[in-house]
Amino acid sequence: MSKIVLDVLSGVIPQRPPVWLMRQAGRYLPEYRQVRATTNSFIEFCLSPEKAAEVTLQPIDRFGFDAAILFADILLIPMTLDRRVWFEAGEGPKLDPLSADDIADLEIGDVEAILGPVGETVSILSRQLPGQTTLIGFAGSPWTVATYMIEGGGSKDRWNARRMYWQHPEAMEKLLDLLADATIRYLVMQANAGAEVLKLFDSWAEGMPPRMFNDVVIRPTKRIVDGLKHAGIDLPVIGFPKGAGTSYRAYAEQTGVTALALDHGLDAGWATANLPAGMPLQGQLDPAVLGAGGKELDAETDRIISAFSNRPHIFNLGHGITPDVPVDHVHRLVKRVRGTS
Amino acid sequence: MSKIVLDVLSGVIPQRPPVWLMRQAGRYLPEYRQVRATTNSFIEFCLSPEKAAEVTLQPIDRFGFDAAILFADILLIPMTLDRRVWFEAGEGPKLDPLSADDIADLEIGDVEAILGPVGETVSILSRQLPGQTTLIGFAGSPWTVATYMIEGGGSKDRWNARRMYWQHPEAMEKLLDLLADATIRYLVMQANAGAEVLKLFDSWAEGMPPRMFNDVVIRPTKRIVDGLKHAGIDLPVIGFPKGAGTSYRAYAEQTGVTALALDHGLDAGWATANLPAGMPLQGQLDPAVLGAGGKELDAETDRIISAFSNRPHIFNLGHGITPDVPVDHVHRLVKRVRGTS
Repeated sequence: MSKIVLDVLSGVIPQRPPVWLMRQAGRYLPEYRQVRATTNSFIEFCLSPEKAAEVTLQPIDRFGFDAAILFADILLIPMTLDRRVWFEAGEGPKLDPLSADDIADLEIGDVEAILGPVGETVSILSRQLPGQTTLIGFAGSPWTVATYMIEGGGSKDRWNARRMYWQHPEAMEKLLDLLADATIRYLVMQANAGAEVLKLFDSWAEGMPPRMFNDVVIRPTKRIVDGLKHAGIDLPVIGFPKGAGTSYRAYAEQTGVTALALDHGLDAGWATANLPAGMPLQGQLDPAVLGAGGKELDAETDRIISAFSNRPHIFNLGHGITPDVPVDHVHRLVKRVRGTS
Repeated sequence: MSKIVLDVLSGVIPQRPPVWLMRQAGRYLPEYRQVRATTNSFIEFCLSPEKAAEVTLQPIDRFGFDAAILFADILLIPMTLDRRVWFEAGEGPKLDPLSADDIADLEIGDVEAILGPVGETVSILSRQLPGQTTLIGFAGSPWTVATYMIEGGGSKDRWNARRMYWQHPEAMEKLLDLLADATIRYLVMQANAGAEVLKLFDSWAEGMPPRMFNDVVIRPTKRIVDGLKHAGIDLPVIGFPKGAGTSYRAYAEQTGVTALALDHGLDAGWATANLPAGMPLQGQLDPAVLGAGGKELDAETDRIISAFSNRPHIFNLGHGITPDVPVDHVHRLVKRVRGTS
């Protein structure tokens, strides 16, 4: 059976764009909250293959999205460097903050064993997904993961990580290389388990001078893309350097990714004029519009479909769906994208 | 006496750029912390003309910056709409969250009385500043102030404000218009007290679809610029739409501001090629580089001076200086910009 998401990623311009949503398996769905409530620890939940597969499938069952993205978290990878990760309710992820000195002692552990359950989740999904649905695996990009490791969690402006780049460039380079290499093994495992597309989330690619963007975003991303090819994995890779602005162009030209996910702040006119011709683009509805619903949602949906109508385009949000979004708004969006509303 | 900052803002390309730093009167200075410690409430501190003037002058005395920016806070303006503002130690600003319904009842109060002490601060500074130092007044831009009012303080992603724009556009428009009109009166007061330049801080101009950027950033900014002219104030206005990316161009072309402050994430090559010819630009050193110091600081400083050498350019950071920056790094930066290191 032909899969429209794979077709678009191979360069086909679709009649209507396929659609899936970042964080589509999530707290806005009552059936997700029900399964989630059966496990206390979020990390343990991510590492429970049956449950992770079940919540991955929920939005496919409900909305018939054209792609399913593996349910997991970008902060599993620090565990492969022997760093603890835990989630505190209402506060998000926590880690022991990492100093430049700490980085010298880091080593990559047994990635395939530590994150083996994620591979199992992918295997289950690969067997259970409908034939037309594309299975997307993913990982956080090294810079974004590094910011959480250095700050010890989320932070307002990633100050310690940014300063470490300028003050201890060699330590930062080592950390990013380790993360890239662990990520390659993690993604190879996902590919071997049945993932058909891989996505790299660089959620904090914003606000950097060019040299820094090159060193912490482009170089580690290229290392991963090259490493995957070297390992014989020839899947499409979607890169998401959120907030990169005009640096999306250098990212597109230099990392080797197949396609780009666009955040909702990137001007669509600039994107279509300046990003490599024929490169598939994904995005870019403002999640706040989905939260608002109504005719504004219809108008923005139409605007985005129209803006990318001459490109291979996968409809998506510009960032993840939030817990307060009414399920009805998602139905309305999907119908609008499909032209059945 | 000629003032180099005013010269640059009138279009002159200087031999070496003048320099000042956002938040140059701040916690990284021991003499600031000493004066700050004499008043418990931060709002009361901002509304104490002698003290606010004293801390404004401190970095001029220490570093000889080419401009002094009034010490105040962007969140004074909600007080003119009868909204309470307070600061909690370590948590930042707090307000009572504003709903769309609340907005219907808002009215502008006696701006000149409520913020009269700020006018007094400007008067004192106008008398006490060295003859070559330009005095900059400022206000927060309506959208940025609105986000704090709606969220009840700082927030990770300004979700409620963003959703309100899409869900209750008429309420958002009213709020932004009220804020713009109160801001015009506030800035007219500052101008009449002796401010020589006015700066508008839109700290949260990032991550918006074009229609939203137009409605919440461009339109209210233009309303302020037009309102100032209408009131007979003909001072240069520096606009700072932080994080606007390629939308800096529409902002530059449509708001009527005299000059643009660039954040550190905006590509300098894009900026010089795409922003209106001859428009003075200010920026854009990454504050994290100033935090790191050393040869990286020198290299980034040189890069920025060189990138804007064919433009009227004022050297500055791309965002405010942070409390942990060593004073020595600031000395090093100023010497480097002046070519005396």
